[in-house]
Amino acid sequence: MVGSRPVVGMVGGGQLARMTAPAAIALGVGLRVLAADELDSAATVVTQPRIGDYASIKDLRAFAKGCAVLTFDHEHVPSGHLRTLVREGVAVRPGPDALLHTQDKAVMRARLARVGVPVPAWRGAGSAEEVAAFGTEHGWPVVLKSVRGGYDGRGVWVVSGPEDGERLLAGLAGVPLIVEEHVPFRRELAALVARSPCGQAAAYPVVETVQRDGICTEVLAPAPRLPAERAVAAQQLALRIAGELEVTGLLAVELFETFDGGLLVNELAMRPHNSGHWTIDGARTSQFEQHLRAVLDLPLGAPTMIAPHAVMANVLGGPDPDVYARYPHVLARDPELKVHMYGKESRPGRKLGHVTAVGEDVEDLRARARHAAAYLAGMEGETE
Amino acid sequence: MVGSRPVVGMVGGGQLARMTAPAAIALGVGLRVLAADELDSAATVVTQPRIGDYASIKDLRAFAKGCAVLTFDHEHVPSGHLRTLVREGVAVRPGPDALLHTQDKAVMRARLARVGVPVPAWRGAGSAEEVAAFGTEHGWPVVLKSVRGGYDGRGVWVVSGPEDGERLLAGLAGVPLIVEEHVPFRRELAALVARSPCGQAAAYPVVETVQRDGICTEVLAPAPRLPAERAVAAQQLALRIAGELEVTGLLAVELFETFDGGLLVNELAMRPHNSGHWTIDGARTSQFEQHLRAVLDLPLGAPTMIAPHAVMANVLGGPDPDVYARYPHVLARDPELKVHMYGKESRPGRKLGHVTAVGEDVEDLRARARHAAAYLAGMEGETE
Repeated sequence: MVGSRPVVGMVGGGQLARMTAPAAIALGVGLRVLAADELDSAATVVTQPRIGDYASIKDLRAFAKGCAVLTFDHEHVPSGHLRTLVREGVAVRPGPDALLHTQDKAVMRARLARVGVPVPAWRGAGSAEEVAAFGTEHGWPVVLKSVRGGYDGRGVWVVSGPEDGERLLAGLAGVPLIVEEHVPFRRELAALVARSPCGQAAAYPVVETVQRDGICTEVLAPAPRLPAERAVAAQQLALRIAGELEVTGLLAVELFETFDGGLLVNELAMRPHNSGHWTIDGARTSQFEQHLRAVLDLPLGAPTMIAPHAVMANVLGGPDPDVYARYPHVLARDPELKVHMYGKESRPGRKLGHVTAVGEDVEDLRARARHAAAYLAGMEGETE
Repeated sequence: MVGSRPVVGMVGGGQLARMTAPAAIALGVGLRVLAADELDSAATVVTQPRIGDYASIKDLRAFAKGCAVLTFDHEHVPSGHLRTLVREGVAVRPGPDALLHTQDKAVMRARLARVGVPVPAWRGAGSAEEVAAFGTEHGWPVVLKSVRGGYDGRGVWVVSGPEDGERLLAGLAGVPLIVEEHVPFRRELAALVARSPCGQAAAYPVVETVQRDGICTEVLAPAPRLPAERAVAAQQLALRIAGELEVTGLLAVELFETFDGGLLVNELAMRPHNSGHWTIDGARTSQFEQHLRAVLDLPLGAPTMIAPHAVMANVLGGPDPDVYARYPHVLARDPELKVHMYGKESRPGRKLGHVTAVGEDVEDLRARARHAAAYLAGMEGETE
């Protein structure tokens, strides 16, 4: 450490920690990563990655030693361990009480409903009878969600009727579940905000996210044709949640925009988020820099866009794993394109990287980002 | 390595290698750094830095093993060693024949003059008599330069007359020197281009560089009020030199703009350059990404600016070494500002980092960048 420069410890070795590294390099703060494996996405790019188990209090305690702040690239660290660390004097940001709302969907839904944030109708689903009763009340289909651990389409099931629910619950014995109304929505939006311990907050433009099979494939910033007052409402909602839950760091709020123009909160994340990857190339302050500034209680950076539009497309693993061999075509075709690869082994459907196009014409950007992402994935046919 | 992703080996552990790391992380290519010390600027941020001596063929050979390409963050590696490595099959980019023009000012001046590139009048300065004769012919003062190893104002002496020359040469016995005319210039410019092994080239906008005591303190992109035809002439000059010298990677050409609007080449560098740091935040493709793309023979990225103006100011070491303690003021005052620190111990006058402001109004950007750089250096008084 030179002067008072702090070290930020990030638990998790995935692409979110990896993309935090450039922001830490620029700010000149230390970044330490706790990865499960030395070949993890972030572990291959940071200096001296720590290898350990995020579920072990011993590993967490050793990791936190010497870090000014402990933060996360995922939400899987047990709350109890985080509370122990806080008691031992570690600055955990976001804190365990805030983070719990990303770890437990029932806690999140209950808390948001209590503070008046619009969420889909929901209920705990301990039995097939409860699911059936909920379906009768709210109409079929309904959505069954694992209370813990679900993401990227995992842990979510659409239930067509009572028999379907019975069958599903039989296979999920012992898994805590909630049941929700199946919200018919126009599209999905995401509102990304940052909040620092001293209470300063900043809101990025609200984006549209496009999912396929529950996995985010595209993000359009800002959300096209979103009325200004609805965009502001989404930002205010996210800022309100960040304040109510005393979030420190980033908060991503995934929203349904309903056909009548309403907004319902679907999910929360308290870390850099796929819906904010466009900020690396499209905003003055990337979400990764913003997260570091927020957890270090430094003044936040401007969340403004550097161009009217940015489009991000995820590169998902395709049939041919050698993505690098396809660089020449993609880079030659579009010299303005920004490519971000995560250094991960290719597996079908796995998020291997993303591309971002920034400029004036959203349809043009979208076509270019889609083509590049599909081509890098080895799926040229998908570009049509 | 996953698929065919290559590893780029960069000799040197300074801030240029450090700032190359984020570009390598995004492109998903490996970056290996040969640093002199594990506390070097780049060594503290890359994974598994190699510690060794750039002047040792043994260390270079071990370092190059497994690298697809060898490149540099400085020009001090002995040519002979590089020729040996080339013979042994290492892809050295830029190659030793090109790099020699950044290592030996006499070779550079002679070569540029031979291909018709305008340079200041110059001559080898083996004795005080030769310096005196040159001064008589071209007028006093003259400039004495060390043929090798000078930068940031070191290895350059302004000589007021024959006696001064005699005194200086007495103190520089055995140091190869050249003598040059003291060019009266309006300002200094820099033209940054990239060239790949297949011959593709790209030129960044020509910038104005501001020096104090021979050290670059500010860069204005593009150079304000530079007539378009002169900007194009500077770019063409740089592209021609890159082609003539068969440069691979970046080439920075430092130029004098004379009072009659002429351009004279002062220095060359074949690596990321202080005059191009603004590109990280102000251009679609940063010079660091561009250098990687060029040495890997990947298609080059767009060198276009993302806003009308960018201003970079270097943070030079001041009286109080604790730069981080001054972050809150600087970041709170200017949320749009981009801060880049190099993780180096503070010493008076040492380049510790830089700040960049990007936007519409060059005078506003300049005031903001200057204030921030001076404040971070602990020299608030200098902002007036």
